[in-house]
Amino acid sequence: MNSMAEGFLSRPRCIGLGALVFLAIGLELLSPVNGALAAHLGGGGRRQISEDMKWKVEQEADRVWLPEQPAVNFSQYAGMVTVNATAGRAYFYFFVESSEDAPTKPLTLWLNGGPGCSSLAYGFAEEFGPYRILPDASGVYLHEYAWNRASNMLFLESPSGVGFSYSNVSSENRIGGDKRTADDNYHFLLNWFERFPQYKHRDFYIAGESYAGHYVPQLAKLILDRNVGADLKINLKGCLTGNPVTDGYWDNVGNIDYWHSHAIISDQTWEKMKKECNFSDPHCCTKACDRLYTYAETHEFGQIDPYSIYTANCLETISYSSAHRKSYLTVRPNNPFMQGRRGYDPCTGNYAEIYFNRPEVQKALHANISGIIPYNWTGCSSELRNWTDSAFSVIPVYKVLIKAGLKIWVFSGDADAVVPVTSTRYALAAMKLPIVKPWYAWYHHRQVGGRVLEYEGLTYVTIRGAGHEVPLLQPGRAFHMFKSFLDAKRLPNSPYK
Amino acid sequence: MNSMAEGFLSRPRCIGLGALVFLAIGLELLSPVNGALAAHLGGGGRRQISEDMKWKVEQEADRVWLPEQPAVNFSQYAGMVTVNATAGRAYFYFFVESSEDAPTKPLTLWLNGGPGCSSLAYGFAEEFGPYRILPDASGVYLHEYAWNRASNMLFLESPSGVGFSYSNVSSENRIGGDKRTADDNYHFLLNWFERFPQYKHRDFYIAGESYAGHYVPQLAKLILDRNVGADLKINLKGCLTGNPVTDGYWDNVGNIDYWHSHAIISDQTWEKMKKECNFSDPHCCTKACDRLYTYAETHEFGQIDPYSIYTANCLETISYSSAHRKSYLTVRPNNPFMQGRRGYDPCTGNYAEIYFNRPEVQKALHANISGIIPYNWTGCSSELRNWTDSAFSVIPVYKVLIKAGLKIWVFSGDADAVVPVTSTRYALAAMKLPIVKPWYAWYHHRQVGGRVLEYEGLTYVTIRGAGHEVPLLQPGRAFHMFKSFLDAKRLPNSPYK
Repeated sequence: MNSMAEGFLSRPRCIGLGALVFLAIGLELLSPVNGALAAHLGGGGRRQISEDMKWKVEQEADRVWLPEQPAVNFSQYAGMVTVNATAGRAYFYFFVESSEDAPTKPLTLWLNGGPGCSSLAYGFAEEFGPYRILPDASGVYLHEYAWNRASNMLFLESPSGVGFSYSNVSSENRIGGDKRTADDNYHFLLNWFERFPQYKHRDFYIAGESYAGHYVPQLAKLILDRNVGADLKINLKGCLTGNPVTDGYWDNVGNIDYWHSHAIISDQTWEKMKKECNFSDPHCCTKACDRLYTYAETHEFGQIDPYSIYTANCLETISYSSAHRKSYLTVRPNNPFMQGRRGYDPCTGNYAEIYFNRPEVQKALHANISGIIPYNWTGCSSELRNWTDSAFSVIPVYKVLIKAGLKIWVFSGDADAVVPVTSTRYALAAMKLPIVKPWYAWYHHRQVGGRVLEYEGLTYVTIRGAGHEVPLLQPGRAFHMFKSFLDAKRLPNSPYK
Repeated sequence: MNSMAEGFLSRPRCIGLGALVFLAIGLELLSPVNGALAAHLGGGGRRQISEDMKWKVEQEADRVWLPEQPAVNFSQYAGMVTVNATAGRAYFYFFVESSEDAPTKPLTLWLNGGPGCSSLAYGFAEEFGPYRILPDASGVYLHEYAWNRASNMLFLESPSGVGFSYSNVSSENRIGGDKRTADDNYHFLLNWFERFPQYKHRDFYIAGESYAGHYVPQLAKLILDRNVGADLKINLKGCLTGNPVTDGYWDNVGNIDYWHSHAIISDQTWEKMKKECNFSDPHCCTKACDRLYTYAETHEFGQIDPYSIYTANCLETISYSSAHRKSYLTVRPNNPFMQGRRGYDPCTGNYAEIYFNRPEVQKALHANISGIIPYNWTGCSSELRNWTDSAFSVIPVYKVLIKAGLKIWVFSGDADAVVPVTSTRYALAAMKLPIVKPWYAWYHHRQVGGRVLEYEGLTYVTIRGAGHEVPLLQPGRAFHMFKSFLDAKRLPNSPYK
């Protein structure tokens, strides 16, 4: 998330989120790319194949083998799926089957937030994908706590303009919004299930972090709505959101309280923010409030990574031209001795940006076919600029999902200053759900993994010592939480359970 | 501090501190030890030596060479100094001269808190002494960020009953108190200066952490008072306290706010504590308040190290009989490859308890001569049981010291839940000192080291990512802070300064 660190303290507007960054770099999209999409969806040798067999060929055509990847015991597929044929919008997915008995495991869709950030960049490459990327971006190595140990994992780059997902109408990339994203994501699913019909009736979960705190419940609600009378009733079982943007008021109040109590901002700035910033106004904020944010960011926060307030910043600046020649580590990370000893690497985001721009990697992923995307792949896109359709609060959506009986878990890494644990606690408390099991410490490997509060219809879990990208810094605790969510199993309140 | 972790949430009584632990293990002190003290202070071959030369012989007799220690470029001395001849109280010190031009460097006395915890155990062996102890307790290795790079460092075990410091009247160990500790510490200094007269007029600082938040300013004030008309005017220049117990009211309010905002305790427990616990009452607390603390400790905190809330607990239990045979690391830590890579070791406290009980180590330290101490050396003593003389607040003492023009710095590791950053911020803010330079981020090695708030007469520094024992987890940042304190140099507000 380092690319987003600068200027992260954007003002709490209607969306009410520090994490919302619209970089106005002024790139112009080049020519439309109708041809490539058409070619992908049925051209060439596929024409003769019967409809019944078409999905098998298409699925197989999407099979991935990354350059020099380690041996694995699961199948993986990637490619483009049309979400809107008229406008020529196609989304990129990376699908990783479970490494342990895939046919019996559920299917989980993972969405990253931003808006504008890529599930390939964060969920897949930094957090809990089967691999992590070598510091010289020459390849990948296996990641112990990959979530595909517990579920078939579908990573989606959404909406168009993010990563390899694009629109033929380039201006569309610049106008994002909650409703269109949910609609596109729904159509992505319908079409993806056509290519992977063996998953059509599988137990299905939607998970995501950050601004996907909007995407996940909104998509879930849309699925419930559209399932009524649909040919394909998506077998949605639940939602999981991490450090999620939830509520314009409580998120912002939680932000400034977190910054103050974590010795980031001064008493004076905190007091003034409480006075000057009207967080209940969707059009917050006044110039005085704006100035306070600017002051806090430049003088008080200092150059920390707000997404992980206790870890070091990456001091390497990314350079595409030099990165290929440079190795940041003198000891190769795939040296088995180093494997267990490697800690958090704050430069990890840089490696993905180099790796996924390598032509042979893009070819292996069936992405950016014929080089149709006129800009570099980046972790967070500079294409999305206007996000006018953003719910002030998704609390009403959660209420619908809870009423529908979905399994809903929300988690917070407690070292994140962007969508902090305070924000999410406040927002959930505001729902005034009855408490089923009060706040308790939970354990992983005999250490406290965080705390749990079980509401009626919603379980809240904190993960101790994790930032915004929870599985990046606490992979074991995050995996334990994910597995417990899938199994609907209470997290252990003793180190010996 | 692991030995103190269990039951750390003792009730905020008159002393108002979670860290105050009086373990009532029921050890009985054995025989008085008059003989050993007399023998140390002038027996044997020293009788013929002139008074003028006596100190040289005594000083030399205290020179230390630890078993199999690495080569060093500084002198070190340890031994016993009488603080009260009548009662037969003698304090143990370890003195480490500066590794860089000792004669020009100031002298800093370091005190640990508890009450009952040892400066040898914490300041010296875990935090910023010249060495750290090998995991098999077979020896020591050099520590890069030793504070004796910047100052001559005098570590004192205080009061009697702590570590190797003892009283011939064993019952005295059990009755500690602020005033007697300050008085004993003062007499220790007078007598120590007789043995080390070359330091008599050296710039002198008093530093310490935790309950030494009482000891440090109280001793400083006593020195100022006694300097008037004294033969030896101690050249006191300033005080430095870290995560210090300061004020019975603000410390406790800061505790519960920290626990809540750091996702340790529930909204419900926090709200009830604010209602039930009257922290302004020195005899706080009611049974209802007590019950809330017990509930929070057992259900909500879980088994974390409250002194360092994000790090792992040590899962090894200490065993004197087996520890000598066991090495916790398969790779020896003095392997140079491992030196830079070794992170925080939560079992570090155990190594000291084994090491300082080795007879050959005690002999090298001139401690526990003839085995006069009838109990094991421990990091925190079980001897001190009643501490009835404890100031409710040391804010009035700070005011005197500020008025006297002493240089005063206070620092907080921001990952400590026992005397947290909130507590100390609240207490200092309550002094209502004018602000000279408002809250700003400071830098070490191009990363944010924490924040600074410069009051008139007092500088407050936070250290990012450090627990109660700040130099244990953030040795580089702690050293930078200490050096800046000594040099009266503002911490840098830019990564490039």
